[in-house]
Amino acid sequence: MYTAFLVGTAGSGKSYLTNALTNYLRTNEVDVVTFNMDPGVYRLPYSPDFDVREYINIEEIMAEFELGPNGGLVAAVDLITSHAAVIYEEINNRSPDILIIDTPGQMELFAFRPTGVIAAKQLGGDNCALVYLMDVNLCREPYGLINSMLLSLSVQMRFFFPQLNVISKSDMIEKDLLDEIQDWLEDKFLLEDAINNIVRREQIEAALN
Amino acid sequence: MYTAFLVGTAGSGKSYLTNALTNYLRTNEVDVVTFNMDPGVYRLPYSPDFDVREYINIEEIMAEFELGPNGGLVAAVDLITSHAAVIYEEINNRSPDILIIDTPGQMELFAFRPTGVIAAKQLGGDNCALVYLMDVNLCREPYGLINSMLLSLSVQMRFFFPQLNVISKSDMIEKDLLDEIQDWLEDKFLLEDAINNIVRREQIEAALN
Repeated sequence: MYTAFLVGTAGSGKSYLTNALTNYLRTNEVDVVTFNMDPGVYRLPYSPDFDVREYINIEEIMAEFELGPNGGLVAAVDLITSHAAVIYEEINNRSPDILIIDTPGQMELFAFRPTGVIAAKQLGGDNCALVYLMDVNLCREPYGLINSMLLSLSVQMRFFFPQLNVISKSDMIEKDLLDEIQDWLEDKFLLEDAINNIVRREQIEAALN
Repeated sequence: MYTAFLVGTAGSGKSYLTNALTNYLRTNEVDVVTFNMDPGVYRLPYSPDFDVREYINIEEIMAEFELGPNGGLVAAVDLITSHAAVIYEEINNRSPDILIIDTPGQMELFAFRPTGVIAAKQLGGDNCALVYLMDVNLCREPYGLINSMLLSLSVQMRFFFPQLNVISKSDMIEKDLLDEIQDWLEDKFLLEDAINNIVRREQIEAALN
């Protein structure tokens, strides 16, 4: 069984990619299973085969501990570790070729809390990789791209899984800009030029005002 | 008016620091005003002078747009920009010496969405700084410390405010470990040594198994 964790900031398209990837793989007759790891999601664009919401009810947690949506999500994500072993066994019994794990909406709750790493190690199995989604809306400016890469690096230094960085929602921007982002990624001098252009433009604007 | 944005991952102690700082400053007769910028918080350890929840009701948003806690928080934080000008004017009329802004619980919603930066620029005024809280629980391991520093850097590259990095909740770990973290921060070779020790320990453990 190969496992792919889809990770990315809120709104980067994890659930939609889970849906699209699953459909694509199933069309190609690959036995793929999906696991929704987000206890706080209401609607998903796909029907998960395994679902953390069957084990964790965020509304009960919010009511029981008198927590708001913030605290409720933190507590619910922390609780995943206590169910991870059972969930892993169930998935393992089903034993698909590929397991796609759709991680919690707010990446920070999963990637920057100690419990997230513990849960990932428990669920990951031997052959796992992390797919990091860089929201194209954050990558369209040179500084935003650096920002996304830094976030990606900090995720990599947390899990130490083989990691693939993917620019998501790329159909939302024009082809020219996408090519430019590609250039920045391939040639750091072009990225430096783009930043210098911004600095120069700001200096000119400041001088004119 | 000087403005300080308190930013950090969920649970890093933003609200408690807002409380402690405000009490300290008031004891020293500084005119300080607090602004809660988190629409999704239920309980705060202090009474905010200005509160985004007076403008944005997360439960109404969740009901109206049929969103879960995730989507509700994202939408609520995005909505802050549309109220920022009015809130800024109200705070400016009050004109304190210092304004402390307690940012949303999940840093990602504020720091890694384009709307967060827009709201910060609107609210920040001319003399603003960002206080980045590095949760001591994330800093106690060498990799965790690097991780926190990368996150801090990516916040800095997003807002471009003068930024102060603060290790929060430092009373939760022993003095010796805190001194060690301090050494790692001051001498990168000591940090490298600490990482090499981990790698060596893992190699020995692997050889023994």
